[in-house]
Amino acid sequence: MVEKALIAMLKTHPIRSVYLSLYLYIYKNQNLIIKNLLSFSLQRGVVDAAKPIIEEEIATKLDVGHVFSTHVKPFRIADFGCSTGHNSFPAMQIITESVQKKFRSETSQIPDFQVLFNDQVFNDFNTLFRSIPPQKNYHAAAVAGSFHERLLPKASLDFAYCSCALNWISEVPKAVRDDTSPAWNKGRVHYTGAVQEVFEAYSNRYANDIGSFLEARAEELVSGGLMTLLVPAAPCFEHSETFYTTQSELELIGSCLVDMAKKGLIGEEKVDTFNFPLYFTIPQELKAIIERSNSFSIERMEILNNPGKCTLRSADARATYLRATCEGLLKNHFGSEVMDELFDRYTKKIAASPLFLDPDNEKSIIILVILKRKAE
Amino acid sequence: MVEKALIAMLKTHPIRSVYLSLYLYIYKNQNLIIKNLLSFSLQRGVVDAAKPIIEEEIATKLDVGHVFSTHVKPFRIADFGCSTGHNSFPAMQIITESVQKKFRSETSQIPDFQVLFNDQVFNDFNTLFRSIPPQKNYHAAAVAGSFHERLLPKASLDFAYCSCALNWISEVPKAVRDDTSPAWNKGRVHYTGAVQEVFEAYSNRYANDIGSFLEARAEELVSGGLMTLLVPAAPCFEHSETFYTTQSELELIGSCLVDMAKKGLIGEEKVDTFNFPLYFTIPQELKAIIERSNSFSIERMEILNNPGKCTLRSADARATYLRATCEGLLKNHFGSEVMDELFDRYTKKIAASPLFLDPDNEKSIIILVILKRKAE
Repeated sequence: MVEKALIAMLKTHPIRSVYLSLYLYIYKNQNLIIKNLLSFSLQRGVVDAAKPIIEEEIATKLDVGHVFSTHVKPFRIADFGCSTGHNSFPAMQIITESVQKKFRSETSQIPDFQVLFNDQVFNDFNTLFRSIPPQKNYHAAAVAGSFHERLLPKASLDFAYCSCALNWISEVPKAVRDDTSPAWNKGRVHYTGAVQEVFEAYSNRYANDIGSFLEARAEELVSGGLMTLLVPAAPCFEHSETFYTTQSELELIGSCLVDMAKKGLIGEEKVDTFNFPLYFTIPQELKAIIERSNSFSIERMEILNNPGKCTLRSADARATYLRATCEGLLKNHFGSEVMDELFDRYTKKIAASPLFLDPDNEKSIIILVILKRKAE
Repeated sequence: MVEKALIAMLKTHPIRSVYLSLYLYIYKNQNLIIKNLLSFSLQRGVVDAAKPIIEEEIATKLDVGHVFSTHVKPFRIADFGCSTGHNSFPAMQIITESVQKKFRSETSQIPDFQVLFNDQVFNDFNTLFRSIPPQKNYHAAAVAGSFHERLLPKASLDFAYCSCALNWISEVPKAVRDDTSPAWNKGRVHYTGAVQEVFEAYSNRYANDIGSFLEARAEELVSGGLMTLLVPAAPCFEHSETFYTTQSELELIGSCLVDMAKKGLIGEEKVDTFNFPLYFTIPQELKAIIERSNSFSIERMEILNNPGKCTLRSADARATYLRATCEGLLKNHFGSEVMDELFDRYTKKIAASPLFLDPDNEKSIIILVILKRKAE
């Protein structure tokens, strides 16, 4: 069923046809890949939208002097949260080409490039390595581990990049899972629509996580090193009747789970113990967190208005889209046998809602931030 | 059958019990790992034997000056041909601890360490990353690709290591597979006992491969950088009636395949088109190849007399040992359905041979070489 809907949807969706056939091939052979399938088109849209900004910032802000001492040193770029690399490879090409151009404009020597691809230790690095484009202008390496921690030697990195990954928090806040806490998130699976304590627990976790991320990168980056962040976010925290965001969709899936618990199809305690480890910041909040870290100057910060946004019009296609991106998490907790029922219910709720049915009402944003490591 | 023999063998074999149970667990869950299973004990013996030499060479030969310019730079170590890392981790610990000691003796600052684990792109890097010891004094990264080519940026590596991997040639020489060539290796699967042209084709391939390896490492290593090679080898190229080596065992398995072809159990052309991509050099030959490369000075070169040698006494156990190390290659070419027959025949040949049955007659050697990158 998923596969059929997927094929129908891909036929009408503006993904380049070469990727369409490649991804369908992968889907047929390896079911796991499906969860990356559609986030690919979203994230690729983000990379395309960010491209001119990244190019301009490298041209104007990159300090090439530190790469030369007695001889040309390698120039190292890391992508934090690269998954199996399909969105990372075009981004790494944009960055390496921009840096080469900058070097050419200021010196006669071009450094060797090394790109370090990072993701969690349970990421599929075998697929990553086998997917690296044969024609590339860098040496590739991979680094496994949480980007909330130190991953690289001190002052060993010239350029950091992180796209569509910082919306994942390191873990669901403990208080949200604790039935003795005022932040216990009973009957919900995310903070949207929940009591203020739940939101604050998520918000504090997020601030701590971004703080840890910045602290680790501040250690790893050379003085003057640049960092590009593309952060999935929301325009505001308030509930809206006129638009929806990714977190509204998570709330909707939560309401389907509650309905199923009421019907006895899943246990109520199953719903109470599940929470999405996702947080969508707003520009003002992210800016404040970065400023607190004190190791980086904000060179540029702007909103990419959902450049890879979903343009799927049918309720079926929309449900398939969400299923592709978050079924893995749900299946682990609720079991695969209830997934069809869950997404059937979700499809019906979308179809019945004029707000959700029109993808033009989706107002999620991507915040683009360019940071520079201050001199110590 | 393999599993039973393996368990029996492991019970009598001097592998630490913690590894025994770990490896049996892995074997039950992932058949592929079996080929690394016994090479583990062999290679671990090699690391143990090489340990005092590596420590001494680092203490006396390592130039720590280049790591300091205006600030402490990271110290990078690469292991070329690390497989899933089980033999690499203890070696990397020995090297990092020796280098730390050296730094402590000469300066007050200890650099951050980064270890780059390399193997072919089809290596299981997922298992590698999940196996990295949590208590380690370095940042880990992985690099996929053939070590006969460039893998790292120019002058980015401080210490190279390669253990029990340089006996694999990059490919079986074309002439050996070509039925119009005088080097066509009809009726054999390796160069031992074959016509001189076959041996020369292998020998030339090996010299070219080692040359490419040294050339790539010369680019990657800093001036003064050290390299430790542990090279599986033979004491001489001549046939012997009083001892055997790994290549004698490959010849024996070849004779079993020929017998099976004669009985019609496998196609004759199947035997003619299969050759092991393995070569066992001798010390004089290896020394000459290194000297031709001209980028390295030989700081030390000596023979480790088969420190991890096989001590299995029964023919069954010996066959299981060989099966564990080379079944993968054979199965790919001949099919899994003939493997039991092949190794039954091999067991009988071992049992009938006083030479092969006594593991004390095994005279394979490991050549330890410490090289230093000359200044450019």
